[in-house]
Amino acid sequence: MLELRLVQGSLLKKVLEAIKDLVTDANFDCSATGFSLQAMDSSHVALVALLLRSEGFEHYRCDRNLSMGMNLNNMAKMLKCAGNDDIITIKADDGSDTVTFMFESPTQDKISDFEMKLMDIDSEHLGIPEAEYHAIVRMPSAEFARICKDLASIGDTVVISVTKEGVKFSTRGDIGTANIVLRQNTTVDKPEEATIIEMNEPVSLTFALRYMNSFTKATPLSNTVTISLSSELPVVVEYKIAEMGYIRFYLAPKIEEDEDETKPQV
Amino acid sequence: MLELRLVQGSLLKKVLEAIKDLVTDANFDCSATGFSLQAMDSSHVALVALLLRSEGFEHYRCDRNLSMGMNLNNMAKMLKCAGNDDIITIKADDGSDTVTFMFESPTQDKISDFEMKLMDIDSEHLGIPEAEYHAIVRMPSAEFARICKDLASIGDTVVISVTKEGVKFSTRGDIGTANIVLRQNTTVDKPEEATIIEMNEPVSLTFALRYMNSFTKATPLSNTVTISLSSELPVVVEYKIAEMGYIRFYLAPKIEEDEDETKPQV
Amino acid sequence: MLELRLVQGSLLKKVLEAIKDLVTDANFDCSATGFSLQAMDSSHVALVALLLRSEGFEHYRCDRNLSMGMNLNNMAKMLKCAGNDDIITIKADDGSDTVTFMFESPTQDKISDFEMKLMDIDSEHLGIPEAEYHAIVRMPSAEFARICKDLASIGDTVVISVTKEGVKFSTRGDIGTANIVLRQNTTVDKPEEATIIEMNEPVSLTFALRYMNSFTKATPLSNTVTISLSSELPVVVEYKIAEMGYIRFYLAPKIEEDEDETKPQV
Repeated sequence: MLELRLVQGSLLKKVLEAIKDLVTDANFDCSATGFSLQAMDSSHVALVALLLRSEGFEHYRCDRNLSMGMNLNNMAKMLKCAGNDDIITIKADDGSDTVTFMFESPTQDKISDFEMKLMDIDSEHLGIPEAEYHAIVRMPSAEFARICKDLASIGDTVVISVTKEGVKFSTRGDIGTANIVLRQNTTVDKPEEATIIEMNEPVSLTFALRYMNSFTKATPLSNTVTISLSSELPVVVEYKIAEMGYIRFYLAPKIEEDEDETKPQV
Repeated sequence: MLELRLVQGSLLKKVLEAIKDLVTDANFDCSATGFSLQAMDSSHVALVALLLRSEGFEHYRCDRNLSMGMNLNNMAKMLKCAGNDDIITIKADDGSDTVTFMFESPTQDKISDFEMKLMDIDSEHLGIPEAEYHAIVRMPSAEFARICKDLASIGDTVVISVTKEGVKFSTRGDIGTANIVLRQNTTVDKPEEATIIEMNEPVSLTFALRYMNSFTKATPLSNTVTISLSSELPVVVEYKIAEMGYIRFYLAPKIEEDEDETKPQV
Repeated sequence: MLELRLVQGSLLKKVLEAIKDLVTDANFDCSATGFSLQAMDSSHVALVALLLRSEGFEHYRCDRNLSMGMNLNNMAKMLKCAGNDDIITIKADDGSDTVTFMFESPTQDKISDFEMKLMDIDSEHLGIPEAEYHAIVRMPSAEFARICKDLASIGDTVVISVTKEGVKFSTRGDIGTANIVLRQNTTVDKPEEATIIEMNEPVSLTFALRYMNSFTKATPLSNTVTISLSSELPVVVEYKIAEMGYIRFYLAPKIEEDEDETKPQV
């Protein structure tokens, strides 16, 4: 028996909006510690890892570990029917092949339950080792989304280059080139507006903008985003979910075929 | 000679937006009592009845009964050109084959007149008998629109079931099932937020969501909607038009072919 | 060496949005007096003339006259990447085949530079003689945009007729006819809401609505628009750019083939 009651139901709505375009079908894993998901995107290039810790739920009952295969588009359709202020409860009976989403309006005058068929999905859980990163950039999530969107109007890939002074996002396309530099900046009115760079050594890596733009669908979940970079490691783009957990996106850097053409000019 | 001057011209704009997708061509009937319309939708499944009483107009002159055939899409195009604060006057000379819509801006600095050709439309006016309904539900119109839209993302039909405790809207589709229950609730801050159920006997009827969603285009006309249900009678979905009249939509229930599959579970 | 620094960078963004759908490629001409453009639309029917005077720039350095051929769509793509509060600097080295747009955020924490290839574009600069106009109408730009949009839902051409009392915009299409009359009106709360008519003699001219609607893309640049009319001269539709210059659109009137059909009825 599973029963997870989330007062801030809009979080779950936003989580689904963040990942449904990247991942078609996935297993949600429930255990005593939390509600989590790990899945490759359909082209097997990017990895999504979601964690909602049990402490974040008003009520969290999970009698035994359970893996529930869901079509994320269908799940998103159902969650869209929840109001933004609704309490959402996820329920499943032992051995059942369905999951139920219950939505309660704040006044309790409207109660909805949506029942969805579960799917059998083969998946192997990848162990993601803790790694040391050359550079970690924390910046406003809306700014990162804006930059990825802007650069995608010019080129297909982004070179992210980090130095102590700042982080540079560059691209090149048929119509020209673009460089956007953000300076390290911690003297801001609101802490979430800061751009903070922790750097052990300079790093410059190239990524497909298509995936970066897909990751920024998680922007409504958090005011800030953290980008962790190391040469020859996948970048981690992390959005914290208020006091509950995170969504992390992993993407391998592109290997440059022509160094001269796309060499970053920090 | 016909001359109908409506100070709140936006009402007429909203009326056209409410019915133009459902009905292509229709006769507007003018008499001493008011400006009205009765028409079947193009697939002859739903019926629309509109009444704007003469008392609601600032000036109402209708020398003799007149039936004016109009293409509602073209009429809507013209009314869209009226500002939301404009006064709208409908004018027609005796025997003329055109109708004129005149729009006056509140400051009288902008005066527009749009002339439209009338059409000959065959139509028989159906007598709609007053009926006793098993159950009448009055609820916020935006809530009803939200429910019909949400359910249409899951299935094609809605089962509306009324008991003393509340009204349940259910559907079933390929991806699962959905049940939305609204409780009777009269202790609200604003009267238009109440959900009020008058019930003589429980009723449970099935309707095509496509039509229900079309009816909810009238939502901007009124804060509340009234749904009148009886077994073997068409449902009436009514939107009152402030102190002037109403739009009523009639739709026959679907006969269930497989009772077990879609039986309401109140 | 060219370096033009515009504090109100959003003006340049709006200029590009105003002309990019009308003109594909064009030469921007830089001289000591200002930054200007003159170009025919791709069907060679309408003419655009832009002037941004050097005094309007915070810094204006233009060592020698320079003509830079640009693809306006690509330029608009790059300018879209500037924030609305950004300072924009246009830079070009002597003899370079590229131009650089630099965007600085108000806090100087984000600096972007976008480099675009220049093009060779053949163009002859037309001398536009100063002309006497029969009638000049100044009116709110949003009202003009609304009227052109509304009339385009009814017909393809607009007859603009000016008398001392007002200006009339008329059209005729398959579904009927439309006349919109604006009265001269100078007693308004805000000067930009006035409709002011300077008339030497009545005039009535016919224009393609498609072009008029294209010109109204410049509406965000100015609260008012000035329309200058003379029989047998192109109309001038002018949007002033705050203390810096203007965009002017020129369009030849259509010659009526059937006077009776479309004769204006002032």
